[in-house]
Amino acid sequence: MKGFAMKRIGEVGWVEKDAPKCGPLDAICRPIALAPCTSDIHTVYEGALGEREDMILGHEAVGEIVEVGELVNDFKVGDKVLVPAITPDWGALESQRGFAMHSGGMLSGWKFSNFKDGVFGELFHVNEADANLALLPEGMDPATGTMLSDMVPTGFHGAEMAEVTYGEDVLVVGIGPVGLMAVAGSALKGAARILAVGTRPNCIEVAKEYGATDIISYKEGPIEEQVMSLTRGKGVDKVILAGGGLETFKTGVKVIKPGGIISNINYLGSGENIEIPRVEWGVGMGHIKIVGGLMPAGRMRTERLANLIMAGRLDPSKLLTHRFEGMESLDKALDLMHRKPVDLIKPVITIKY
Amino acid sequence: MKGFAMKRIGEVGWVEKDAPKCGPLDAICRPIALAPCTSDIHTVYEGALGEREDMILGHEAVGEIVEVGELVNDFKVGDKVLVPAITPDWGALESQRGFAMHSGGMLSGWKFSNFKDGVFGELFHVNEADANLALLPEGMDPATGTMLSDMVPTGFHGAEMAEVTYGEDVLVVGIGPVGLMAVAGSALKGAARILAVGTRPNCIEVAKEYGATDIISYKEGPIEEQVMSLTRGKGVDKVILAGGGLETFKTGVKVIKPGGIISNINYLGSGENIEIPRVEWGVGMGHIKIVGGLMPAGRMRTERLANLIMAGRLDPSKLLTHRFEGMESLDKALDLMHRKPVDLIKPVITIKY
Amino acid sequence: MKGFAMKRIGEVGWVEKDAPKCGPLDAICRPIALAPCTSDIHTVYEGALGEREDMILGHEAVGEIVEVGELVNDFKVGDKVLVPAITPDWGALESQRGFAMHSGGMLSGWKFSNFKDGVFGELFHVNEADANLALLPEGMDPATGTMLSDMVPTGFHGAEMAEVTYGEDVLVVGIGPVGLMAVAGSALKGAARILAVGTRPNCIEVAKEYGATDIISYKEGPIEEQVMSLTRGKGVDKVILAGGGLETFKTGVKVIKPGGIISNINYLGSGENIEIPRVEWGVGMGHIKIVGGLMPAGRMRTERLANLIMAGRLDPSKLLTHRFEGMESLDKALDLMHRKPVDLIKPVITIKY
Amino acid sequence: MKGFAMKRIGEVGWVEKDAPKCGPLDAICRPIALAPCTSDIHTVYEGALGEREDMILGHEAVGEIVEVGELVNDFKVGDKVLVPAITPDWGALESQRGFAMHSGGMLSGWKFSNFKDGVFGELFHVNEADANLALLPEGMDPATGTMLSDMVPTGFHGAEMAEVTYGEDVLVVGIGPVGLMAVAGSALKGAARILAVGTRPNCIEVAKEYGATDIISYKEGPIEEQVMSLTRGKGVDKVILAGGGLETFKTGVKVIKPGGIISNINYLGSGENIEIPRVEWGVGMGHIKIVGGLMPAGRMRTERLANLIMAGRLDPSKLLTHRFEGMESLDKALDLMHRKPVDLIKPVITIKY
Repeated sequence: MKGFAMKRIGEVGWVEKDAPKCGPLDAICRPIALAPCTSDIHTVYEGALGEREDMILGHEAVGEIVEVGELVNDFKVGDKVLVPAITPDWGALESQRGFAMHSGGMLSGWKFSNFKDGVFGELFHVNEADANLALLPEGMDPATGTMLSDMVPTGFHGAEMAEVTYGEDVLVVGIGPVGLMAVAGSALKGAARILAVGTRPNCIEVAKEYGATDIISYKEGPIEEQVMSLTRGKGVDKVILAGGGLETFKTGVKVIKPGGIISNINYLGSGENIEIPRVEWGVGMGHIKIVGGLMPAGRMRTERLANLIMAGRLDPSKLLTHRFEGMESLDKALDLMHRKPVDLIKPVITIKY
Repeated sequence: MKGFAMKRIGEVGWVEKDAPKCGPLDAICRPIALAPCTSDIHTVYEGALGEREDMILGHEAVGEIVEVGELVNDFKVGDKVLVPAITPDWGALESQRGFAMHSGGMLSGWKFSNFKDGVFGELFHVNEADANLALLPEGMDPATGTMLSDMVPTGFHGAEMAEVTYGEDVLVVGIGPVGLMAVAGSALKGAARILAVGTRPNCIEVAKEYGATDIISYKEGPIEEQVMSLTRGKGVDKVILAGGGLETFKTGVKVIKPGGIISNINYLGSGENIEIPRVEWGVGMGHIKIVGGLMPAGRMRTERLANLIMAGRLDPSKLLTHRFEGMESLDKALDLMHRKPVDLIKPVITIKY
Repeated sequence: MKGFAMKRIGEVGWVEKDAPKCGPLDAICRPIALAPCTSDIHTVYEGALGEREDMILGHEAVGEIVEVGELVNDFKVGDKVLVPAITPDWGALESQRGFAMHSGGMLSGWKFSNFKDGVFGELFHVNEADANLALLPEGMDPATGTMLSDMVPTGFHGAEMAEVTYGEDVLVVGIGPVGLMAVAGSALKGAARILAVGTRPNCIEVAKEYGATDIISYKEGPIEEQVMSLTRGKGVDKVILAGGGLETFKTGVKVIKPGGIISNINYLGSGENIEIPRVEWGVGMGHIKIVGGLMPAGRMRTERLANLIMAGRLDPSKLLTHRFEGMESLDKALDLMHRKPVDLIKPVITIKY
Repeated sequence: MKGFAMKRIGEVGWVEKDAPKCGPLDAICRPIALAPCTSDIHTVYEGALGEREDMILGHEAVGEIVEVGELVNDFKVGDKVLVPAITPDWGALESQRGFAMHSGGMLSGWKFSNFKDGVFGELFHVNEADANLALLPEGMDPATGTMLSDMVPTGFHGAEMAEVTYGEDVLVVGIGPVGLMAVAGSALKGAARILAVGTRPNCIEVAKEYGATDIISYKEGPIEEQVMSLTRGKGVDKVILAGGGLETFKTGVKVIKPGGIISNINYLGSGENIEIPRVEWGVGMGHIKIVGGLMPAGRMRTERLANLIMAGRLDPSKLLTHRFEGMESLDKALDLMHRKPVDLIKPVITIKY
């Protein structure tokens, strides 16, 4: 079968591979919608995961099942399914502790285009199908469904880790697709003001539609000064980091109230150390929590997020600025993610058979 | 001063009383908007709190401060303020345990028209003004502001105790004003489907605007059957009880998933015992939590809920179906609550000076 | 193979059965230590689970692995293992929601001597071995290890659901083996006073060793009066129900503070409804949480509880009042549980090969 | 009145001051037991709080009430009382959010020897007496009682923020008096292994008595290597930082499992930034929470911790290595804290009238 792969750091292209094998708990799918992710770019062009050879890329997909293992009960060939980017081993000790995304070791629930071939192939393999897949709800556009692989669950996890609650003021740093979902996720947890940091007009417009009340641009001066001014010196209750570099943590600590939470959902690709300013962190005594985490996944979670869409509470299709058809467009779509034209939020590809 | 009072069980009317005294931490206010509550009806006509003589009624108000104690720092004469129905003693042991509404004993944070005169007087007294009042935000209609005394915080607390989270299915029993706010509060915590039980057309329409996805009427058959049918036999994740009698708990247990929470915000006025069906409750092993609680109050909470309104996330003015002017209308407004015409959700009175 | 079975309601005896089959994720064990449980008695003599025919009894065991499925990674033939009474399906939706004991439906994580043959056979079957078994730590007596199947995890879960924290006063109703573990579990969560209700001298002595500070006997008058007197009218913070009938809930509600939690770990075998007294429950507004749940299980949990024993924090061997040798003693041991002589806490059987 | 004061950075001595005034909610006490704290040393000799002139030192005391304000209900002249180091304003917005120690601004619940005179005077002032004091339990040695001002609540808060639970492995860095209480507090939350880092023989012995299972000395090599070796490469579930400098955070991140919590209770007196190693922190995705906070205080908390001592669960008197009599010994006691002889844990002074 063919797949669109990272050939080595800095180089992508089509490769020919054997079809994946289906274990007793597994499923084999073919993609019906795919979306490239900024992480694919990190992986290929920054070598964020280290060297890889001919590894098929991609972890955002809606698929159709073509084969299931003999112990799979809840899915059958022909089912159209939502495929989360993270596919944990559900019996692992970490899963039993509530951190399935780290099953088998830190971040090890992330398998697609990390430890094994990703979804940008004619076929792809899903472990523990019953636990990791969810049916594409009737009436949901597969293109929209791809946003449930990573963008929605990651963005929403930012609001979860921040423990956003009724009437809080939340700062969201970065309004790429993940940050936009953090904005939507904060609104859906009852945030009052949502201050969003970003500059691209397209993203700003969509951020407002998802619930941002105030837009902050680094071009207008230091972010912390703008936050303190907008909140009349009080600062915010919570901070979600969905973009920028390590320095965003410092900003967060400077604008947050005692007892606040800084929640990171931004893959931190470079730099040695995150620096937490000692004095602003209350000389270690200010009850400012700092946390960051990979998205939770699994069928239950995916079904719940899909239910939110079907109940009309969330429309992630606003993220889909560029649409392609046919697997052969993967090349162009990934290139878009690489170049990031100013009007891009997310590209998506649909595939007909 | 004059006040509209419960003269004895079953009888209301105007009384003449001494003006309340202002202690060092307190404030004296005059009302600029008032709303009667179903609890006032319970108090007067069902004697729910026991006998009371010439006790001024009312616990939903927006006021204007006319006097402050010498230790009050954050409010001054002339300030327009949101007045929560519950006004705890913040230093009490229960408050330090996180249950300020029970400061000094179960339910003892509820003082207005319970242990002391309520807000339906020319003047009313607020203990610990700095901790219990909040400024009426600029631009907020005082009539809307009265909904922050009890309806919004009580309804939202239903969703809080139910620990509603992303994509859950929630059953709200009762869509009077508190139930409607439980619907809105569930949507603002990320519920997917919200099944609401009620029959009054006016309330049904508003319930849908606040986020109800399915309406259930007891006239169409047993509620549990309808819930199980609407959820394809799966049941709901959470149940909020905002109306009906003790039998609603049984309904809740029958339609909830293991691990679910039944959250009661309905003042249970009569009956000896709530009955929890042993078998459906998993022979004591099903992890179905049952809880009920009085609304949290305080300045911080009230400011946060007001922020939600100012940020455009919530519009409680949809509850205000009947508007009056002048304190002398209290008579008529309370009578409305007593008679409950089919188009009533909440009456409100505004007062000009 | 032979097994000690419930032949029908009211009758036990040895049966001959085919050896269990090992699926790819499973293990087959032979027992090296076994303990009968009060639930076995409920099952047989009260028909608590309904009719069963020739179902092998037992769910408390330490075993030795004699066969593993081809997908089992972490265990091998010859390993000595702790076997939890509950053996969930870890990929199930309920497990992903944090309630693995209800995987596949309420209580459905409980399989041994419920949906399938129990551990009182020459061989028994364990599903998802990697996720459900734990190595018997070096140096742990297998007899002691059987207490990790049910008594320790169930009793400790009582303290967990009660969210016992530093310096709280806790009432534990019932000091059979599970109640005793609830006492120990409360002490290990930092409870201050632990009031324990029981009358058997043996149990009272052990309760004190596990941390009970006050013993209450129903023979001395109503429990609620004694609790209120011992706490100078304040009541307790938390209540754990580990014995008695449905009426214990009423007692709990009457002696608990607002904001308290009543946590049930007592299998409720008979009666139609649990009755919650409306007024003492704060007319639905007192923030008194009522919850009950089956023990959490899994390898992670079991390893952690075993670590507690190995670190010297807990010695469950105090429960083992009667020791037998050889599988043929199952008859006598179960009969002991049935008759409950006054000096019995738990019988245990060890098996040599 | 006389008081033992910081005259300026680097200099201590006796000063003469006016007696403190008693507001309506307040109490004036005279000390019956006092203990100096390492923070007093930081304050004086490192200028940790900045310059202060003639500020009376001390925040660990048991006192006797000599005057109460007219709104104080629960205490009277002659009562012997536990005096927490932190004395919040209970109505403040931060208190209503659950962070009373930050009432009025970050760390602002800390008043003694920070914003106002401390307890090392012939008289000292306590704000909101009903909410901030607790009766010295009958039978508790006042010297022991001083450990409830700061050492016990701070150490135990380390275990609370770390959310230590049954069977977890916990690393406690630093076994001075606060670290020792973190060890005891971890054991009282059900930790299994407690690995404690320290070198002073006296402290090591007491650490073992409080529940440490493994002692690690930096003299034996890098701490992280020792932790990984003792845990067979698995690392620990939680880390409590109770000593050392900013570099301890790096150690914590390196030895903790994904999903772990690093809880700081160490006053961080110097250095610009805490450094969190990016890669070991899971490139921002490892769910390793970092938090630090000032001790919770208040009457409820203090009573609960006192109850733990009275119930025999905790004996903080093991910390008291050096005992003095008479206020005039403050000089010597503080000097001990400054010099830290190898056998010192805590000095305490009792005062007779």
